Amino acid sequence: MFAKRFFSTSPRTLIDKSRFIPKTGFYPRGYKVGAVSSGVKKGNTLDMSMLVSDYPASAAACFTTNKFKAAPVVADKATLDANQGSGIRAIVANSGCANSVTGEGGLEDAYKMISTVDESLGIASKDKNSSLVMSTGVIGQRLPMDKIVSGIAKLAKGDLLGSDHEHWLTCARGIMTTDTFPKLVSKKFSMGGTEYALAGLAKGAGMICPNMATLLGFFVTDAPVEPSALQKILSHAVSKSFNCISVDGDMSTNDTISALANGAAGGELITKSHPDYSILENEVTEFAKQLAQLVVHDGEGSTKFITLRIKDATTYEDAKKVANSISNSPLFKTAMYGEDANWGRILCATGYAGAEVNPAKTNVSFIPTDGTAQLDLLVNGEPQNVDEARASEILRRENLEISIDLGTGGGESCEFWTCDLSHDYVKINGDYRS
Amino acid sequence: MFAKRFFSTSPRTLIDKSRFIPKTGFYPRGYKVGAVSSGVKKGNTLDMSMLVSDYPASAAACFTTNKFKAAPVVADKATLDANQGSGIRAIVANSGCANSVTGEGGLEDAYKMISTVDESLGIASKDKNSSLVMSTGVIGQRLPMDKIVSGIAKLAKGDLLGSDHEHWLTCARGIMTTDTFPKLVSKKFSMGGTEYALAGLAKGAGMICPNMATLLGFFVTDAPVEPSALQKILSHAVSKSFNCISVDGDMSTNDTISALANGAAGGELITKSHPDYSILENEVTEFAKQLAQLVVHDGEGSTKFITLRIKDATTYEDAKKVANSISNSPLFKTAMYGEDANWGRILCATGYAGAEVNPAKTNVSFIPTDGTAQLDLLVNGEPQNVDEARASEILRRENLEISIDLGTGGGESCEFWTCDLSHDYVKINGDYRS
Repeated sequence: MFAKRFFSTSPRTLIDKSRFIPKTGFYPRGYKVGAVSSGVKKGNTLDMSMLVSDYPASAAACFTTNKFKAAPVVADKATLDANQGSGIRAIVANSGCANSVTGEGGLEDAYKMISTVDESLGIASKDKNSSLVMSTGVIGQRLPMDKIVSGIAKLAKGDLLGSDHEHWLTCARGIMTTDTFPKLVSKKFSMGGTEYALAGLAKGAGMICPNMATLLGFFVTDAPVEPSALQKILSHAVSKSFNCISVDGDMSTNDTISALANGAAGGELITKSHPDYSILENEVTEFAKQLAQLVVHDGEGSTKFITLRIKDATTYEDAKKVANSISNSPLFKTAMYGEDANWGRILCATGYAGAEVNPAKTNVSFIPTDGTAQLDLLVNGEPQNVDEARASEILRRENLEISIDLGTGGGESCEFWTCDLSHDYVKINGDYRS
Repeated sequence: MFAKRFFSTSPRTLIDKSRFIPKTGFYPRGYKVGAVSSGVKKGNTLDMSMLVSDYPASAAACFTTNKFKAAPVVADKATLDANQGSGIRAIVANSGCANSVTGEGGLEDAYKMISTVDESLGIASKDKNSSLVMSTGVIGQRLPMDKIVSGIAKLAKGDLLGSDHEHWLTCARGIMTTDTFPKLVSKKFSMGGTEYALAGLAKGAGMICPNMATLLGFFVTDAPVEPSALQKILSHAVSKSFNCISVDGDMSTNDTISALANGAAGGELITKSHPDYSILENEVTEFAKQLAQLVVHDGEGSTKFITLRIKDATTYEDAKKVANSISNSPLFKTAMYGEDANWGRILCATGYAGAEVNPAKTNVSFIPTDGTAQLDLLVNGEPQNVDEARASEILRRENLEISIDLGTGGGESCEFWTCDLSHDYVKINGDYRS
């Protein structure tokens, strides 16, 4: 069976990803969105997205921890600090060029991009910037500023912006790089008797690793949220979602997930001490998990969506270390691609993760996603006589789930999402720039 | 150009690895070596190697740090402890089954393997084991002990053992798994007016990562060396060689590098305070680097041999962290495979390594291995206008060298060897067990 997979032109094309593209949505009030082809990317491809809030919004962001922070990351951080998270009116993101490791000139470009947005939209204030910018694409090349400036001008005119489902989808398309489908989620929720909406966009298919690799995303809501509460909610949500996914273990210089809350739907201001704070935190977190999972579903060249459940670790950090180690192991990932129940590779990656493990109490099982009985591979450190036919049956599915119980008695656990490593990953990344 | 590579049946077959197999050698006195087909592997393949010393030898070993230590690792460690590193007479290594994560039964198997060697060779002592055992291959399967026992018996009879070059090559072949060529090095050296020899064998092509992944190897010399001096020399040599290579970032449960010194060539006993200690340490270290580099040359599916030179780090550990991070980045490795000068990926992996870096003082260059002028990619944090034709010219070579200067002022550096990530890696590892 592997031979068949290997010699097929592309296993990936066999998987229909269009089911991940929503056909409709519930979108927050007071936002207009859209995208344009600015010319940064070759061809007539959408490569710049804009989101404008009708009202000054509370804003928060989580940025990459890479030591080489891209220019837009540095600029956005400064903007949020200067504004103390208030008064943000727009987000502009371009694909095709990451404006990363571009020296002093690149930082000037990022600030020029911000001021162009502010001026074009008429939201410039004397002493503070009012917009956030994001860039994704090739590292080490300067932004073609003429194209960036004219792209912003085209979007700011307004006729490409709107609040329909199609506008949101277009906005999600404008930030795609090697993504094969736009990543957009939305939902309604109630809080304190008022109905709100949340929308989220993301891009990212390679360079995806805990701590958010080439990942750009933003959440927006029409709920009124105090800036520091929004930051706390976003940080929590990201730690349980975008920091719990890995495609290839590479963490980019540009990762940014930001959030805006413009209060357009009215209701009470959510602060950290408001009784509804935990409702909102929970809504945003579950929502972020959905969006993060879409990124894994579109993992470069991936053919499998794998959920890892690490159990009974000493600490949550240890559980995450193990998940991270397994999900970054090329041997594990290629075995999943080959639908090979070579579970020794799971154990091996568990053992070098640097986490506390009790080998004599460790359990590993495949959990079929169709609800049938789980298949135990290792029970209390003893390998089981595995029914290979049953293992193959489970591994043939697109969605896989693996439980690893570390047996430490600590009781901490984590959920983590990853994908396999295929021929197409090598193909996509061996020739990305051409 | 990439397209041509991609559609060729296997770029790897284009590279002649036979040049890495020595045609002759200088071997230490007092050892007999050989290999047999025991039947652990399918077909009539060599899968068990034996080395016997005519005299009780000092012994040392470096083992995996994986939490799931394979049974032979546990058993060998106990043997060396009980003997305080003296009186070892033989090493037996099998391929095809790693005897790892095999529970209590697997540990009994490892001890049974040791006692079988001791009894068959007539070197059994009442209270101590006199041999070391190693296993490599699939994890989680029990050793077929009948085949192991009869294989040992065949080797112990002696007619398959000898001390010629061909015997040493055969011994190196017996421990191969996905290796495409046997890894054997030998040399003469002088110390205190006496001529000695060193021979080294290793296997390992996948699961190779710092801290020695599925790597089995042993060095033997006819110099007389005190056990604790031998351990110190081996640990130093391994830290600069086998712990400075990475094929895929996976660290196995079985890694073992051991060393024997039987003193058959006479001369003064080398202790830690002997004036010739540093001569021997240096000889073994340079020798270990040679052997470790052979492992990278045979990296699963690899088409490039890459030397990373990390400079001006705060500490040696930081330099190694950066080298490790770059060499384990699938994005870096696929770019090298695609001969794509996408140096942003080098920077990116440097930035998330967790080491001290001064972005504004960081320099990255390609160093052509033909002695022509280096190509600067990043100078003091500023990207250079890279001549792509020149970059392609450099990247077309099989041997690549990259210099990364972290600009911290700390002055620490490290050398590290790795390879690219190709279609063949995915092919080999997606279907290893079949």
